[in-house]
Amino acid sequence: MKKIVTFGEVLLNLAAQGDLRLKQSNSLDLRFAGAESNVAASLAQFGEDVSYITRVPKNDLSEKVINTLRGLGVDTSKVVYGGDRIGIIFFENGAVYRSSKVINDRSGSSIATIEEGSIDWKAAFEGADWFHWTGITPALSASAAAVTKEALVAAREMGLTISGDYNYRKNLWQWGKDHTEVMPELLGYCDVMSGIHPDVNVVEQEVTDELYALAGEDMMKKYPNCKVVVFTARGSISASHNTWQGVIYDGEKVYRSANYDITHIVDRVGGGDSFMAALIYGLRNYATKQEAVEFAAAASTLKHLIAGDQNMVTVDEVEALMNGPKNGLINR
Amino acid sequence: MKKIVTFGEVLLNLAAQGDLRLKQSNSLDLRFAGAESNVAASLAQFGEDVSYITRVPKNDLSEKVINTLRGLGVDTSKVVYGGDRIGIIFFENGAVYRSSKVINDRSGSSIATIEEGSIDWKAAFEGADWFHWTGITPALSASAAAVTKEALVAAREMGLTISGDYNYRKNLWQWGKDHTEVMPELLGYCDVMSGIHPDVNVVEQEVTDELYALAGEDMMKKYPNCKVVVFTARGSISASHNTWQGVIYDGEKVYRSANYDITHIVDRVGGGDSFMAALIYGLRNYATKQEAVEFAAAASTLKHLIAGDQNMVTVDEVEALMNGPKNGLINR
Amino acid sequence: MKKIVTFGEVLLNLAAQGDLRLKQSNSLDLRFAGAESNVAASLAQFGEDVSYITRVPKNDLSEKVINTLRGLGVDTSKVVYGGDRIGIIFFENGAVYRSSKVINDRSGSSIATIEEGSIDWKAAFEGADWFHWTGITPALSASAAAVTKEALVAAREMGLTISGDYNYRKNLWQWGKDHTEVMPELLGYCDVMSGIHPDVNVVEQEVTDELYALAGEDMMKKYPNCKVVVFTARGSISASHNTWQGVIYDGEKVYRSANYDITHIVDRVGGGDSFMAALIYGLRNYATKQEAVEFAAAASTLKHLIAGDQNMVTVDEVEALMNGPKNGLINR
Amino acid sequence: MKKIVTFGEVLLNLAAQGDLRLKQSNSLDLRFAGAESNVAASLAQFGEDVSYITRVPKNDLSEKVINTLRGLGVDTSKVVYGGDRIGIIFFENGAVYRSSKVINDRSGSSIATIEEGSIDWKAAFEGADWFHWTGITPALSASAAAVTKEALVAAREMGLTISGDYNYRKNLWQWGKDHTEVMPELLGYCDVMSGIHPDVNVVEQEVTDELYALAGEDMMKKYPNCKVVVFTARGSISASHNTWQGVIYDGEKVYRSANYDITHIVDRVGGGDSFMAALIYGLRNYATKQEAVEFAAAASTLKHLIAGDQNMVTVDEVEALMNGPKNGLINR
Amino acid sequence: MKKIVTFGEVLLNLAAQGDLRLKQSNSLDLRFAGAESNVAASLAQFGEDVSYITRVPKNDLSEKVINTLRGLGVDTSKVVYGGDRIGIIFFENGAVYRSSKVINDRSGSSIATIEEGSIDWKAAFEGADWFHWTGITPALSASAAAVTKEALVAAREMGLTISGDYNYRKNLWQWGKDHTEVMPELLGYCDVMSGIHPDVNVVEQEVTDELYALAGEDMMKKYPNCKVVVFTARGSISASHNTWQGVIYDGEKVYRSANYDITHIVDRVGGGDSFMAALIYGLRNYATKQEAVEFAAAASTLKHLIAGDQNMVTVDEVEALMNGPKNGLINR
Amino acid sequence: MKKIVTFGEVLLNLAAQGDLRLKQSNSLDLRFAGAESNVAASLAQFGEDVSYITRVPKNDLSEKVINTLRGLGVDTSKVVYGGDRIGIIFFENGAVYRSSKVINDRSGSSIATIEEGSIDWKAAFEGADWFHWTGITPALSASAAAVTKEALVAAREMGLTISGDYNYRKNLWQWGKDHTEVMPELLGYCDVMSGIHPDVNVVEQEVTDELYALAGEDMMKKYPNCKVVVFTARGSISASHNTWQGVIYDGEKVYRSANYDITHIVDRVGGGDSFMAALIYGLRNYATKQEAVEFAAAASTLKHLIAGDQNMVTVDEVEALMNGPKNGLINR
Repeated sequence: MKKIVTFGEVLLNLAAQGDLRLKQSNSLDLRFAGAESNVAASLAQFGEDVSYITRVPKNDLSEKVINTLRGLGVDTSKVVYGGDRIGIIFFENGAVYRSSKVINDRSGSSIATIEEGSIDWKAAFEGADWFHWTGITPALSASAAAVTKEALVAAREMGLTISGDYNYRKNLWQWGKDHTEVMPELLGYCDVMSGIHPDVNVVEQEVTDELYALAGEDMMKKYPNCKVVVFTARGSISASHNTWQGVIYDGEKVYRSANYDITHIVDRVGGGDSFMAALIYGLRNYATKQEAVEFAAAASTLKHLIAGDQNMVTVDEVEALMNGPKNGLINR
Repeated sequence: MKKIVTFGEVLLNLAAQGDLRLKQSNSLDLRFAGAESNVAASLAQFGEDVSYITRVPKNDLSEKVINTLRGLGVDTSKVVYGGDRIGIIFFENGAVYRSSKVINDRSGSSIATIEEGSIDWKAAFEGADWFHWTGITPALSASAAAVTKEALVAAREMGLTISGDYNYRKNLWQWGKDHTEVMPELLGYCDVMSGIHPDVNVVEQEVTDELYALAGEDMMKKYPNCKVVVFTARGSISASHNTWQGVIYDGEKVYRSANYDITHIVDRVGGGDSFMAALIYGLRNYATKQEAVEFAAAASTLKHLIAGDQNMVTVDEVEALMNGPKNGLINR
Repeated sequence: MKKIVTFGEVLLNLAAQGDLRLKQSNSLDLRFAGAESNVAASLAQFGEDVSYITRVPKNDLSEKVINTLRGLGVDTSKVVYGGDRIGIIFFENGAVYRSSKVINDRSGSSIATIEEGSIDWKAAFEGADWFHWTGITPALSASAAAVTKEALVAAREMGLTISGDYNYRKNLWQWGKDHTEVMPELLGYCDVMSGIHPDVNVVEQEVTDELYALAGEDMMKKYPNCKVVVFTARGSISASHNTWQGVIYDGEKVYRSANYDITHIVDRVGGGDSFMAALIYGLRNYATKQEAVEFAAAASTLKHLIAGDQNMVTVDEVEALMNGPKNGLINR
Repeated sequence: MKKIVTFGEVLLNLAAQGDLRLKQSNSLDLRFAGAESNVAASLAQFGEDVSYITRVPKNDLSEKVINTLRGLGVDTSKVVYGGDRIGIIFFENGAVYRSSKVINDRSGSSIATIEEGSIDWKAAFEGADWFHWTGITPALSASAAAVTKEALVAAREMGLTISGDYNYRKNLWQWGKDHTEVMPELLGYCDVMSGIHPDVNVVEQEVTDELYALAGEDMMKKYPNCKVVVFTARGSISASHNTWQGVIYDGEKVYRSANYDITHIVDRVGGGDSFMAALIYGLRNYATKQEAVEFAAAASTLKHLIAGDQNMVTVDEVEALMNGPKNGLINR
Repeated sequence: MKKIVTFGEVLLNLAAQGDLRLKQSNSLDLRFAGAESNVAASLAQFGEDVSYITRVPKNDLSEKVINTLRGLGVDTSKVVYGGDRIGIIFFENGAVYRSSKVINDRSGSSIATIEEGSIDWKAAFEGADWFHWTGITPALSASAAAVTKEALVAAREMGLTISGDYNYRKNLWQWGKDHTEVMPELLGYCDVMSGIHPDVNVVEQEVTDELYALAGEDMMKKYPNCKVVVFTARGSISASHNTWQGVIYDGEKVYRSANYDITHIVDRVGGGDSFMAALIYGLRNYATKQEAVEFAAAASTLKHLIAGDQNMVTVDEVEALMNGPKNGLINR
Repeated sequence: MKKIVTFGEVLLNLAAQGDLRLKQSNSLDLRFAGAESNVAASLAQFGEDVSYITRVPKNDLSEKVINTLRGLGVDTSKVVYGGDRIGIIFFENGAVYRSSKVINDRSGSSIATIEEGSIDWKAAFEGADWFHWTGITPALSASAAAVTKEALVAAREMGLTISGDYNYRKNLWQWGKDHTEVMPELLGYCDVMSGIHPDVNVVEQEVTDELYALAGEDMMKKYPNCKVVVFTARGSISASHNTWQGVIYDGEKVYRSANYDITHIVDRVGGGDSFMAALIYGLRNYATKQEAVEFAAAASTLKHLIAGDQNMVTVDEVEALMNGPKNGLINR
């Protein structure tokens, strides 16, 4: 099978340990974060041939992060080096009524100061048939937005399937334009995209297929290239307990996965990324959209039960949950 | 606003790590404990001007503890040095049916061997309008009880509002007198005091306002200076799961907070202290008693979700829970 | 009271820390495992005089493990030294839908290469009145099965009560014979044995006394020496949440314990062993079988809330749960 | 005695643990760094009344750092809040032939974006008689240099003694002017300043008093306000083994301390800062310059034997080394 | 061979980790300390049959300590339970010019409050031929001194060889009598005792055999039962680097071991205890006194290179150093 | 430049932390070991294109190890999967007179049970011009020896330069043949090989060029293909302090590097492997043999100062030591 390419920012994730708050911490775990690198890492665990593209400075910190990604099986040969710093997030995990917390320290990162033309997209997409990006990259800077567009244009020209995750983060759009001025054009290139979840509290009320279909239709009207709209229905009972279901709409039908009751969350960060990664895998490897969404939901449920931003699970482990009993026995 | 003063024993809390029992431990976390220092620390996080008074020996261990308190913003300039040792508790955290466990090693501590007249209460209370104490201090020794009374007399003379927490610990009263011989006189000075919770299992049965009013009236009759009686209703479903509600009675009306369902407790130690601290803050800073009790309940609910004895939360964080949705989203 | 003897394999348990998966781990906790050593350790915590017999190589790793067992109060003077290696399991703890995982690296261990006649069972059983073994030992090798039989013959001759735990592990029986060829003869020596739980999902449906009695009768018919058949009813709601009940049948009556709702499991490994240990204690120390099964269920419930394979609880702690309220207060 | 004021940048120091390199690290220790805050922390350990001024953003990371400083006894009430980020350094400790390594990630920090006029120096210097600054602050940005000058002007007007540490770091001067364009004017305000060490390898050759006097005279000619020139003679035998001696020149005489043979360095970072802090203490508290330089050398020798950037030693501990035997017995 | 008995105080040793000072610590390692338990632990590692007697309270902390001792192979069946607390020391390890530091928190310990007659010395010494004690025990309290004397009287009556270590600690003798009033009588019972090292700085000057013989003679005159006087010559170059030699005098001849150059000390605490333990082993197991002192010096040199108070080495390991090259190759 | 290929066994290295002995350990660090994988990892850090071949089982432990190697930049696409287990070594680091210790638990590993013909050497060597192996692989089993020979035959046919490291480990040769029966034939294929160091204690006596030339000639006579003989001269002053020098002989001249004085060793394991890796790099990338041996010695000196078996240094770092001052300054 052909290669998948993802592009975006990779960051250091300096995480408070266990239940500690950042302000209580005397040591931090050194992890890495970034929606698109999470997707790449996840796809590599599923055995996909996946290449990740970013721009990082030449120093021991980015070397550590890129090495970790390569170790996970992601091709990092197209990473571009330059700029001054790798972005950082500081993270503390929440519990019940105490929310998780992220302190962003990512401005001025090497990906934000990337210049147009610095990536050879033709070379990057050679042998690939899928490109994945998110709305975080264009949020970082004008040039990051421009390079994202370069990627989309090239991907379209070379016939790749394109998936995009809106991933709107209010705090990031600081470079002069609002997301509503930038994103529509970029989303126009997408075949698969995340949808805006119907405004319903899924803890209190079930969302009907009709509502999802309506929301999907809405997206498809705005973005005529879109063939699959993706929803994740998170029921936020507390920071420690969520329900989690995947839903996709293909213009004809709504497919919804099992609704998982994640009663003791380990770490929900990267949950959405793991869903998108597994959905890409599912759409490419299963015969039916129902299987694809079931795979995506099972995989991303497991991500909630794994520490760190990347979903360290194999296809076998996902399928065991997807197809089997859902009660966590011991595998001796 | 004027200063709040608290007085009592500060201890080393040598805590088993994670889920380990003390007898399984090869390392212990070095924390600090003490009801009144917990109240002081909490008030300092809320931005209150708060001074903490205790007696500790001159050594690196008490220096560590006092430094930590000062770092949290508590004025420690009135701490008195002397005596032989800082008291110690050894702590292990419980889980579900396994109770938390405390081994007390606090006899002979510097606060227990304090002598009458060793604290200049006039100076200590200068610029203050509130004094908080608990029933743990008079339990430690005859002289500690006497010094507590000195404090109360001075506070009353200087017109401070006085709050007291009964905090009865059977194991502590070893110095010759029973708590019933000592506490009534001391409680007589209090404007705000903890009440004896109606004898009802709140897991099984709701406690009516009438019952709280009755219990409150009972206290007010015994202690005519008392203007506010304070209750915390803990529903002990298990060591990992409690419900938690604050209730106050002001002689006229019962005010009760939201009833929190703390499904995954991180550390409940200091829960009561954090409630008292936040109630003091609430009574001083909000227009209504309803807001005060809501603030106190939200703050102390967060304490249950934070490791260590002190409530490391700000007013903004408490108000976000008090006023907002209660489901722990990620704050990016 | 007389001595209890257990015999089997002790292993290193190299365990991923906290919520980490093995493949995420950079350090592992060094624990020890082994059903029969778990039973011995548990009985020693209850104050029983207990001797554990195994074969390990002479090296620092087995010295560490044997020292730990001796430290817990188990007599290890009958341990035999020789062979090439101590078996190892690598362990990661599950969460909700993510199963716990064990990687076995135990082939070629010193207990598997034990030779017939290498243990002086007469000496080993001197002063003893109870012998406990499990189906794991005969699974390891032909000679381990043969030595198990030697033990059973000697125990029977010397009049010891014999308890056996089937503990079937599919992956272990690799030495040429199937468990059905070996176990029946060995089980024939048992007075107390684990039964095959009625094929009912206890989460969905209550198991009637009749069903247990039927299953018990079935065992007793096959193994006429058997006087007590033991069942544990685990309701696997998820890897983090189980229900847990003990049931015994004595040929006349079914005794069932309280059904515990273990909502936040710490570590369920060793749960069955701790049940068997506590049942042995209960049958020896209580007047009634009902008390015995209640003790066993309470003890093993606590094991689920303790890290590591051994049940680090005292009789007092078990009885507090068995007889008292079941909501985990703080013991100050 | 009157207050000492220091001003500069405080940074997070995210340090590799033990002997690990940054690229090998999975956790980092969270410390803090900054020459002037190190000086302040050290002076506070000596019991001096010291105030530290900086500008940091309002977030949990700077709160943690400022709390730690306040905990150490430093007055932080004049710290100014604003800007976007606290600067970060990543640190790994060297060994023998492997150099220690620092990765700077400090551009755009709140102190670099400080604006002129944002600190009320009149208020800051009230009650103070000493001001300490270093050449790191003017290196950060034009405005940081301007604010440094504001401080110096005000300090001079208010009659404070001024000490300055050149602390030249090539990598920092990036804002348009070279240090030779900026520093001379600023150094002109100093009463005490670090001198340029004679260009002699102190491992191979002893530096004569004449050479130090010459170098001192040179400084005093350029900067006529200067009354004391300060040298530290580090003999870099390896990253693990240095010799260390302090030398001062007062225009008349060279004073040199004992030459310490630091055979097993724990952490040399902050060595120079601890020397400057202890020299300030010494000049203020001892009758003779010889005692001052001995105190400074003994104190900073101890810093090399303490983990972290701050010198956690008391006057008693320094004097024990300065006056006593130098062979590290156990103090029971 | 017959049993060795030691008697004294066992304490928790709460130790700062790595190079940290206590005042920098957020976690402490839980070890145990106590001269006589160190001797017992060491002898057990050498395969001796050794019994340790102390008095500790019934709690999880003393259980942990006693279990560890039993795990190391020490018979703890004669330990007496009672009293209020186990003594504690807090420890930080020194480096070069920074001394190690101990904070004592041991007053009121169960061994200090022991009552005369509470140990059945007849039973304790059954099967034993050697008793070891130190001057720390009589320093603790009048009753601890009295019980020590009881032990000595019984040991003498039952014909045991008695070894005593003066181990003078100024801070401990607080109960009314000075050590000079108490120790001479007790030392009178000893066959083997530590001598007062000639007042010579062994770093600067070699101590002649004559000086040792003189010092030995002096002891033997005062204590006519004494047959062997024991010296350890520590050359304190720094806290990280010592020389170390053992010397014994038997009334006729001075025997001195190799002089070890311990250039990178790991932990010198327990060094003297490990020497005494190994000397006891050596006197019992080697044909010559020269071998005994060589074994003792080699063993205690290794202790300086092992973390914790107990000497975790076997006879084989000691003999490899004693007889072989002294350059630390890798044993694969 | 073309690819380098190495082949051998990769093992888990479960290492005691800090100064602890294995028998004191409650956690172990999970590293990886293996001479040939160390060489590959080192070459990858130098930027060489390097491929590592081994056989490991399909489980999470080998996945972890292989991922780490791939992360370090080693091509692992030719690794073969199968067999039952990955070999393990348990390691504790020595100090001064206490030797480092390795417990081998590697029998039955997947590489030992490899079958002839299971590696496609033609494919493996495509694009390669250098093959490196060691005498550890043929020591493991008859089939491992046979596969080594297959590799050598193919490498010779395809014209690769071959380097071999004798790496004799007495404990390993257990499969029936002695190393003297197997190694000569295999060494006959080598262009570069490790020599037998002249039997001289380099701490006490300098080894002359003549002696090295003699030893080299001796090898070249036995193995006529050999063009470069490699020596490392380790002066074992203690486990913490070694001298270290590299020497090569090319049939004409002896080239010797600087002699490094490694006064505070961090971890010497992998020192020889790092020398061989750096020598291969040196011979390929420098114009002179003198530079090659200097690079090799500097690189492997740094390995002694880095924790873990792999040499985590870049060419820049090695050249800085090789060409510059040798005293470990701070790189800010």
